[in-house]
This record gives sequence, C-alpha cells and structure tokens, in this order.
Amino acid sequence: MVARYSEHIELRTAIEMLKKTFGVRAGKNTTEKNISEALGCLLTKDITAHRNVPHYAASAVDGYAVDASSTIGASQATPVSLEPSRYQWMNTGADVPYWANAVLMVEDSSMKGDALLIFKSLTPSANVRPLGEDVMAGQIIAREGDTVTPALISLFLCAGIEKVPVFKKPRTLYIPTGDEVISRGKWLSDPNPKSGTVAESNSLFIEASFREWGFDVDVSPVVPDDPALLKEKVSEGVGNYDVVLVGAGSAKGRRDHTLEVFEDLGKVIFRWIRMKPGRPAMAAEIKGKPVICLPGFPMSTTVVLWSLVYPLLNLLSARDEDQDHLIKEAVGCRETWNTKLLVQHSSPAGIEEWLRVKTAKVGDTIYSWALTSGASVLWALAEADGIALLPATALECEKGMDVTVWMKRKVDLDKRILFQGSDDPAIQLLVTPIRRRGGDFVSRAVGSMGGLAALSRGECHMAAAHLLDDRDGTYNDSFIERFANGAKWERILVFYRTQGIIVQQGNPKKIKTFEELCAGDNVFSNRQPGAGTRVLFDHLLKMAGRSPSEIKGYEQQCTTHMEAANRVFTGLADATLGIKSASDALGLDFIPLAEEPYELVIPSVYMDHPAVQALLDSLGDREWRETVGAMGGYRWTD
Amino acid sequence: MVARYSEHIELRTAIEMLKKTFGVRAGKNTTEKNISEALGCLLTKDITAHRNVPHYAASAVDGYAVDASSTIGASQATPVSLEPSRYQWMNTGADVPYWANAVLMVEDSSMKGDALLIFKSLTPSANVRPLGEDVMAGQIIAREGDTVTPALISLFLCAGIEKVPVFKKPRTLYIPTGDEVISRGKWLSDPNPKSGTVAESNSLFIEASFREWGFDVDVSPVVPDDPALLKEKVSEGVGNYDVVLVGAGSAKGRRDHTLEVFEDLGKVIFRWIRMKPGRPAMAAEIKGKPVICLPGFPMSTTVVLWSLVYPLLNLLSARDEDQDHLIKEAVGCRETWNTKLLVQHSSPAGIEEWLRVKTAKVGDTIYSWALTSGASVLWALAEADGIALLPATALECEKGMDVTVWMKRKVDLDKRILFQGSDDPAIQLLVTPIRRRGGDFVSRAVGSMGGLAALSRGECHMAAAHLLDDRDGTYNDSFIERFANGAKWERILVFYRTQGIIVQQGNPKKIKTFEELCAGDNVFSNRQPGAGTRVLFDHLLKMAGRSPSEIKGYEQQCTTHMEAANRVFTGLADATLGIKSASDALGLDFIPLAEEPYELVIPSVYMDHPAVQALLDSLGDREWRETVGAMGGYRWTD
Repeated sequence: MVARYSEHIELRTAIEMLKKTFGVRAGKNTTEKNISEALGCLLTKDITAHRNVPHYAASAVDGYAVDASSTIGASQATPVSLEPSRYQWMNTGADVPYWANAVLMVEDSSMKGDALLIFKSLTPSANVRPLGEDVMAGQIIAREGDTVTPALISLFLCAGIEKVPVFKKPRTLYIPTGDEVISRGKWLSDPNPKSGTVAESNSLFIEASFREWGFDVDVSPVVPDDPALLKEKVSEGVGNYDVVLVGAGSAKGRRDHTLEVFEDLGKVIFRWIRMKPGRPAMAAEIKGKPVICLPGFPMSTTVVLWSLVYPLLNLLSARDEDQDHLIKEAVGCRETWNTKLLVQHSSPAGIEEWLRVKTAKVGDTIYSWALTSGASVLWALAEADGIALLPATALECEKGMDVTVWMKRKVDLDKRILFQGSDDPAIQLLVTPIRRRGGDFVSRAVGSMGGLAALSRGECHMAAAHLLDDRDGTYNDSFIERFANGAKWERILVFYRTQGIIVQQGNPKKIKTFEELCAGDNVFSNRQPGAGTRVLFDHLLKMAGRSPSEIKGYEQQCTTHMEAANRVFTGLADATLGIKSASDALGLDFIPLAEEPYELVIPSVYMDHPAVQALLDSLGDREWRETVGAMGGYRWTD
Repeated sequence: MVARYSEHIELRTAIEMLKKTFGVRAGKNTTEKNISEALGCLLTKDITAHRNVPHYAASAVDGYAVDASSTIGASQATPVSLEPSRYQWMNTGADVPYWANAVLMVEDSSMKGDALLIFKSLTPSANVRPLGEDVMAGQIIAREGDTVTPALISLFLCAGIEKVPVFKKPRTLYIPTGDEVISRGKWLSDPNPKSGTVAESNSLFIEASFREWGFDVDVSPVVPDDPALLKEKVSEGVGNYDVVLVGAGSAKGRRDHTLEVFEDLGKVIFRWIRMKPGRPAMAAEIKGKPVICLPGFPMSTTVVLWSLVYPLLNLLSARDEDQDHLIKEAVGCRETWNTKLLVQHSSPAGIEEWLRVKTAKVGDTIYSWALTSGASVLWALAEADGIALLPATALECEKGMDVTVWMKRKVDLDKRILFQGSDDPAIQLLVTPIRRRGGDFVSRAVGSMGGLAALSRGECHMAAAHLLDDRDGTYNDSFIERFANGAKWERILVFYRTQGIIVQQGNPKKIKTFEELCAGDNVFSNRQPGAGTRVLFDHLLKMAGRSPSEIKGYEQQCTTHMEAANRVFTGLADATLGIKSASDALGLDFIPLAEEPYELVIPSVYMDHPAVQALLDSLGDREWRETVGAMGGYRWTD
C-alpha cells in the first residue's frame, strides 16, 4: 500500500503541514463584536477614532480658568489679583470657557474676599488639554492584526466606537472515545470502579487549558469504540465547529478506529510524530476543517495540545506568533531557566522528549531532574516545576548536561532544600509544615546509601539513613563516617520506626518469621541496592544462612516502601520488607522484625539554610507528630 | 491638624502597608469548590488521593497478556508458540488477568492459526502498569498553597476527588464617580456629547484587566459628586464585597469628597504615592475591608490597578508571590528587554515614573523612547510596546541610558524599521500595507530636519523631507547632501503634496493670501524648528518682508500638521500653514500656496532590510493610493 500521508514526522514538520493546509482558512472567519466582548481578539482592519478625545478643550487640573495675559508678572512675591468676572473655577476635565486660554492650579492661588490672588505667571494653553489631545477624529488608533487589549477597549469607548471587526476565535469540539472510558459523574459516584475502566479525565484538562488560553471548547459525551458512531460524531463535529479533537484511537489496537474514520471522511495529513510522549498524534482535514486525534494517555494528550492544538488555534485566530513562543505560552512558562542535569537520563534516538522536571540549587548549581518519562503518569505533570524539551539529538544525557527548563511555577531556589535518601511517608508530610515556616523541600527517594553518596558529591543538602552495620549491629555510624570522608556532617535522629515483613491480607502464605519468608516458593519484592531496607534484608539473609539466589524476586528493585508493598497488594509478590505505615496504608498484614533509628544527615555548611531551619523546627510540629503517630510504627525519644 | 495617615509615600511602602493591614485577612476566606471550577484557586490543605490510579494492574500497551515465564528464549529467530488458553488480547488500559504477569506488544507477535507466535522474551511485569503507578491511595498529590492547574484538576478526578478546599478569590466592586461622567450607553448613543463630560471608560479597562487576571469585578452605576451618596455606596460595597475601588475624587478639587467619605467610614491608610502617573491614589480600611481610590485619568487608574490593586487581590487570595513578579504579571509583561534611551527624558525628582515606550533596533542597538508621560493620554498605553518603570533616582535621563522594558506585545525587531522625519497622515496609513508584506514600521514626527539629523546620528532607518532651500528654490538636495556628509543615502519621491493656509471654517478673518495672514492681529499656530512646513513659512515670511516678531504665535511649536490645525479648529489660533488633508480632516478652510515634493531618505545599507523592501512595495499598493488620493492634496508622478 502506498502511504497517502506522512508518518513519523518531526513536530516542526507537523506544525508546518497544519499551517500549509489550514493557513488559508486563517483570517477568513470574521465578525463584529461589541468592544466589551472583544478582549483578546485580533482586529481585521485599521480602526480610526470617531471622535476627538477630549472633544473640547478641557482643564487638566483643578483650578481657575483665566486669560494667560492677565497673569503676567505674577509670583509668590508679587501676586496678581483678579476680579470675579475674569476667573472661573474649573474641576479637572471641565470645559475651559472661550474667553480663557489657561488654567491656574488651585495650589498657585488663594482667595482674598471674592478676588483671586495669582502666584504664578502662565503661558497660553497652560494646564489646558486641547481638543484631541489623546486622539483626534480620523486618527488610526489600532491596526489590522492588533490584539484588543484592556487599554484599547477603553480607548474605543472614548473615541465613540461601539463595535470592532475581529477575527473569530475558532470553536472546538472534543470527542472522548473508548468503551473503557467512564463519564466524570459515574466515576465519582462509584466507590469501586470496575477493573479495566478509566475516568474520562482528559476533557477536564482540555477544558481548563482552553480556559487559561482564552479559547472555547465543548465536550461531547464519550463515544464507544464503534467506527460508525465515531464517524457520525466527527461528521457532526466538523459541521458545527472549527476544530474537532478526538480522544484516542490512533494506535494499532483492535479498537483504534480513528484512522479508518478519518480516511473515510476526509484526508489524513500526518500520523505519528517523532516525540515522546505524544507519538500517536494524527491530523486530518475533513470538510476543510482540522481534526486532530489526541493519544489517550494524559501526558500524551497534554503534549499534543501544547505543541499542535494551541498553535493551530492561534493560526485559525490569525495571530502571527513564533512557534517557540506559542509552545511556551501553551505550557504556561513564566521564566526560562538554565539548569544542569542532576541524574543521567537516556532519551530515545531521533525523538524529541518532553520531560517534567523538578529543580533545586545546591551551592551555585541549579539542578533539574526528570520526575518520570511515562506518558501514563499524570502526577508528574502536576508536580513538575517546569518542562524541558530535549532535542532529537539528545541520547545519553549525562549528569551535569545543560538543560533549559520552562518554569511553570514559582520556585524560590534560595529557600528550597533538596533531600536525597531513604524514603519515608512521614517525611513527605513535612513539606507543608516546612512551607508554613517559609522554607521549601523537595526530595528524591534514592535509598540510604544513595543519599549519603549524593551528599558526598554535593548533589543535595540533606540525606537520611537507617543503615545497619552487620559487623557490629550499629546503625549509620560507619556509613556516615565513610561517606563524609572528613567533612563535617550533622546528624539528627528523627524517630525510630518499625521494620517488618509485609504480607498479603490474611497472610495466605502463613509467613510468621523471616525463616518462613525464605522457605518454599514465596515471591519476594526487593528494594534497590543501597536502600537501608535492602541492607537489612541482606543482613537477615546472612544470619539465616541463605543466599540471594534462593530468593524468588530478589532481583526486583522497588525504590519506595509503598511501591514494594504495592507489589504484595496486587499479588505480584507474596512478601516484602518494609515499614508498618506502608503496610497499613494498603491494609496488608505486618510481622514486626526490628526497630531502627531514622537519621537526617546535613553538612554543617547547610545548617543555616532557611529551609533547614524550617525543617528542624517542623520536626517538633504538633500537628505533624499527631498525624505520623496515628500512622503507626513510629516512636519518638524526646 | 495632625495627619492620621501617611502621605506621599513610596510605592513599596504603600504595598507593605496594605500587607500589614490586610495580610491577616489573607487565607481566612475559604470554601469548597468542585474540581472543574477550581482552576487557578489555591488549596487550603494537602490533598491525598482517594483511590489508586490506576485502580488495577493495567496493560500499558495493545497486545497479549501472558505469563512471562512462557516467553523465555523467544526472539525473532526463535519464536515461542502459545495455545489460546495461555494468552489473552489486551487493549491499552485493559485489566491484566490474574494468571498473567506481563503483556506482549502486538508488534512483537503474530498469529499462526489460533496460536500466538512470540518474538520477544519478557520479564515479569513488562508492559504492565501496576496498581497505583500514577498515584496511590493516601498519597499526597497536592499541597496547601498550591495553585489548581489543569493537570491537577484532571488528577483529582482520576484519584476520586470531587471537591477541593480552596481560598476564595476576593470579589471586587468598582464605583465610578463624578457629575461629568457619562455612562457607556449614553456616551455612545449621543453623537455630540456636551463639553465638560467624559465617558465612563475606566470600568471597561478594569473589567478587561480583571478578566485577564482571572478575578471578578462588578461595576456600580456612576455615583454623582455627592458625599452622602458616595458614603452610602461605599458602605454598601464593603458589606457585599471583599474589595471596593472608588473611581476618582482623591485630589484637592471642590468635588473630591472621597477622602472625607473614607475618613467618616473608616481609617485612611495612606494618600498619595510618589509615582507618576498615579500619584493621587488613596487606601482605607472600612469595616475591615480594603477600599482603594483610583485617580481618574486613565493612565493613573491603570498604574494604581497594576501596582496596588493586583498585588492586593493576590494577597487576599493567599497567593505567595514576589511584588516584582506580580507587577510584571499585572502589566502583562511577556519578556524583559534591555534597551537604550533614544530621546532624552526628564523625570521628576524623587518619583518613580511609568513610561509607555516604543522600541526599535537600529544597527546593533535596541532603542526605546517614551510615547508621552501624560496621565490623560490613553492612546499611548494602547500603542506602547511595553512599560518602563523609571526609579525615583532617575532625573535627567540622557540619550543612550539603559532602560529596562517590560514588553507587552510581540515585536520582531529584525523586521521593524524606525522612521523619523516629517509628519504626514498618508505615511501613517502605510503601516498596515507594510505589515501585510511581512515588515513593521514605527515612526516619530520630528520634522524634516530632525529626521535627517537623526539619520546622520544612526538613530533611525529612514527619514522624510520636504525642505525648501530659499537660496535657489530647490527642495531637499542641499539639506540631504549636508546631513549625509558623504554617506550613501537613497532618495525616494513618494508624492507631491499641497501646502497652504489653514483657517477656521468660513474663514471669519477673511485671509486670502499670505500677506493677509501676516496682517492685523491674526494669531498663527507655528510648527517646531526644523519642520519643513516651518522652513516654508520662514521663506514666505522673508519673501513678504516680514519678521517673526510681527507674527503672533510664532513661538508656538506644534509637531504635527494635525496638532497645528487643531489649534485653529479650537480657536486658539486663526491660521496655520499645513497640508490639505489635515485641513480637510477637521473641516477647516484651506488656501493653497505651494506644491512640494515629499521624499523618503534611506541610507543604502538599509535598502535590503525586509521592512524597507515591504515599504517600497507598499508605495504602489492600490488600496493605499486610493485612500490617500481621496484625502486630497496628494499627487503622484508615476
């Protein structure tokens, strides 16, 4: 089969193809709008003032209209006195009478009986706003292509203009599709949605984004995976709207009918973009209208909205703007930062990649790191400080590589500390207490050893450890000494916490001891090398005389307690080692094994950092301790 | 009397006083909102997910659910075959069945009869999104103080959250005041509003600005200058709204009752800010609510809205943001540019000044210049590329001084040319034809001589001249030669235009000849030194054997034809010299005197500039020639 459309093209190419196909439509869709409704619209013609503003010679001040010649020689020392018939009170904006040609400021006068004492000599036209001072009738006050701003709206009124000719903003319809997609109301009212279903959430993202951008979008009910129905809906859509967006169905799955529908109804322009996420985007021209298929995963939808739909909406609005600026605008970029990559990142070859990144400044270096690159993870977008678009040429991105970040939210780097180290849910709860105290706190769960190593490399302000030295049964001392390598590091004991075996609810495998965990064909969910919990597991294994090769799932590398416990919860594993709060959060069974100290480690040089101070203060926060206490498995000594 | 409030304070002090007085109210006004209505609101609490997302182990791809162990050894060369009971088709997002632990991508398979051929070996959990991959039930997904974004709204829905606790945005009432203020509808329907009246236009600016900022404002009907009525309205306002804005009445005029009303009802916090425009701003606390008086001139209102009201609205919304960022946000700054001042500017001592500036790049220098500094001129705000806030320490700002500009609109400096020279209404009409051809054109009316001088200093790309050499009656040649001083300058004859005497309608002074203009007590409206029209006037004066001292108004310096004609129209002068189109525009009488060539002068080095090319092409634009031809007084030779 000969491909009748381009596949796997670059984003820039895709945008150019949209321009080429729909550029001719831009600027054809015009209307007249009342000035009060024209905000943000683009004018289709030059606009000339209907009236002079002001429409008479107006006093520019509060004071007295006089003939300038009557003030000659007046000064503080030699005031001139005028009888009532030769002056007249003027409020600012009052009509200067024909016999006067200047206005004396009230500050430069006083009254003596009914005579006006003048303390300042005036030139003709002093303090008089001539007719047309602001604009003159017939003057061009705005031009074709200009955006209607608050100032212009106000000026239009003054100049006697009621309506202005503008380009219509395109109206968009979004059609979500999929048998598995559950409407918002149903999703929220059902406490236990069926497996295999998903909330129709993309429309909320789309509606909110359009609102931020100043465009209108309607959302149709969810269309099931039925090509005939989808065809009907898309046909209807292009009849009533300027742009139609179809949610999902552009991949190669059995229910992906969008391509066939687009081919039936019109002409596919391109399919698949060389970017990640967002690859399965598709565009068609149907009855002259642009129809875009948004891939279903939330981050894919987002990226295609930013990079293709927003530029298209602007194109159809006749707004002349650089692509780079449009994409930054779509993303909601408030500033552009130059950062260094904190963590090595592998980017696919020949593909632009959209990273959701977090930022922190350690010493003089502004670091950024990717939260995740999965298209299905919406949290990362919500949590990100900003977006980095890696070029197609980026492959193995080494630590320290320059990365440009489009910052979406306010970040005060001087008040933010970066924590790397052992994961703990109680620590996550510290963020708000810290923020209330004027600091800010971001964290990466890299395990106890990973945190100490990052600290020794100067890649964070703070680490946390609960590392058992199996030579002498001590915690942390030998590890911290080794990583600090002579540097002065402070240690703060936050709490003791209970580690244990987390098993499925009801403990179906009857695991009571560590020995029983190792026996039989139990599948274990392990943590990453360097995690304190893995160190503990290896120690217990050694004590039990077992070798890692005997343990099914030993090669598993979960980076948090919750992730490991989650594998137990979903049946992918029978047991894991972890803290009680993680077990409790998922309603799993817990067999306590040991209590361990959880210590923060902070280089002395950072002790004065405002966020460190806020954190130390927050460790005594009553509300926080109550919440953590209620989670179970934590003990304070103070 | 002891002042009970601060007067003439700095802007920063005023903001601090608002913070001190109303900061305690910030964060008290909370509510619950449906997630779809919470966009842009700030959360009052940490939000935890109600559900795991996804809430089951989901296939991440389209393909086949299998047990990973059944794929061991599979490759393109050594496919593994599975019977139907050991695989199951999965759409993306489908529920992975309990007996499977991995999903084979459809691309890595083919069918042979009903057997599945597997071309790739899988590890357990390959292409499976574990339960809670995105977020886990109980996980904190947004924190106190975070702004609700499109991504968060969508994530809230997925996580089963219907409503979120947010800070209420303050509701604002704007009360326009003034006997002279005419409502919008009345203003537009009356073709000849009375002298001394003004349109109620500030509310349009306020409404549009609030819409851009995402805040609500209601506008009350205009309140006349009556302290009792204003008192009633303000009392009512603070009862029903969080913020009340009062339009005007804070100066020292006889109708300025706002101070007295504020003092009666509550506590005045400050009056008068050391900035220009915007000086007569005033703030009070009435029944615990902030009430701000906006000075009446449009630019004063604007500046106070930007610098005090927007920060106040953010304060009351509990949004923690830098003042600098807030003001830039209020202004609508899209980029910050470093520029050099093109024209000397005198700024008042000890006062911050808000300039509305235009920009252009000549050679390697980005220049900016102030359009006007008058508070009453709204056009300058509409026309400005950006805003420059001069510090209080700036006094005599020399040419070339560094000025930071907050750019409000897109300007492509490489496509823009700066024209300085002789003013002509027909040239102003060229902007749109030039823009349609991909160029951009900005101009300063500085007179023929001023333009040539600017050109010789490298301060523009182009000048225009119609300068009569009274030694030999030639036009332009000698002047251009002198200013070019050896540099290669191209000359383009645009048209011939008719100069003449502009007199009042009906010619009440019966002026028929230049001689008659000079006779009697006629008041003349002159142009600035260096203007071609002034050169012509001086020439005619000399020919008539008259001296400047005999001419009343000779010292007047209007910078455009329209400004000069306007003085005749308003009766400030009996006659001026100017072009026919200016006379016609105001319906004045015109006595033709001479036809002069109007030439553009462009250094050869700029001839390739895209906007010069666009301009040269535009000189033949049919629509433009028709419009200019209809204006009268222009003649083409080609």
